[in-house]
Amino acid sequence: MKYVLSSLLAAALMASALPASAQFAKAEDAVKYRQSALFVMGQHFGRIGAMANGKAPYDAKAAVENAEIVAEMAKLPWAGFTEATDMLSPKAKPEIWKEQVKFKDHNIKLVSETGKLLAAAKTNDLENLKVAFRSTAGTCKGCHDAFKKD
Amino acid sequence: MKYVLSSLLAAALMASALPASAQFAKAEDAVKYRQSALFVMGQHFGRIGAMANGKAPYDAKAAVENAEIVAEMAKLPWAGFTEATDMLSPKAKPEIWKEQVKFKDHNIKLVSETGKLLAAAKTNDLENLKVAFRSTAGTCKGCHDAFKKD
Repeated sequence: MKYVLSSLLAAALMASALPASAQFAKAEDAVKYRQSALFVMGQHFGRIGAMANGKAPYDAKAAVENAEIVAEMAKLPWAGFTEATDMLSPKAKPEIWKEQVKFKDHNIKLVSETGKLLAAAKTNDLENLKVAFRSTAGTCKGCHDAFKKD
Repeated sequence: MKYVLSSLLAAALMASALPASAQFAKAEDAVKYRQSALFVMGQHFGRIGAMANGKAPYDAKAAVENAEIVAEMAKLPWAGFTEATDMLSPKAKPEIWKEQVKFKDHNIKLVSETGKLLAAAKTNDLENLKVAFRSTAGTCKGCHDAFKKD
């Protein structure tokens, strides 16, 4: 029964991944796409981090603007992890494709966490932003530890 | 009078560019940031183009989703064209920094055009999408012709 369920889930995941992979003209584009989306996200996330860590003055409006971009960008990179790209990046662990359910869980968690980060930014309260930033940063790290090479 | 006005405008543009350049830890990050944002935008714009040009079946929902990302991404790259990056990319013409007012005009036009593209996508009418796609593509080309090397 467990096998049937996980097969069904795996099949569902593969089905949902098919249109995404078909959207890239070549596998290298998929790699560049996910790296680009993650880089843009990281730049804006870093600006929130600078405020959360006291390295930049707290600017409530800028925090919201950055969090909006982070939350939008967090949805994008996953479509770029197509099966055809499994050997193309030295930074991507093979576990991404061997543990698709776990990887997808991490993707979903980041979208959820960055949504909470945006909500926290909108409270215009630096303490809320700090808590949400740390939680989101932990989600980044959890996924990197499991799926990204040093 | 014309000189005074353009000087004021140039000063205003430089003032607004300062916080942006200060946001990148190093100039190379600014280059990577703008290239990343443009690449992500281009991927999604290309998917709309495939529908507009009959190379992919028209999918109204996908057109809106892609146009939403295009419209958001169109706002981002310009912050990466900081003065410190004027010698860092072989693709960027020096005119970007010599003709700041004209370059900024192109940036603003793309944001406007991609907003119209999104509005067109939301009409769920392929003919509207085609018209808006062509207009937006012309805006890309106009800026590339003036400011991007082959």
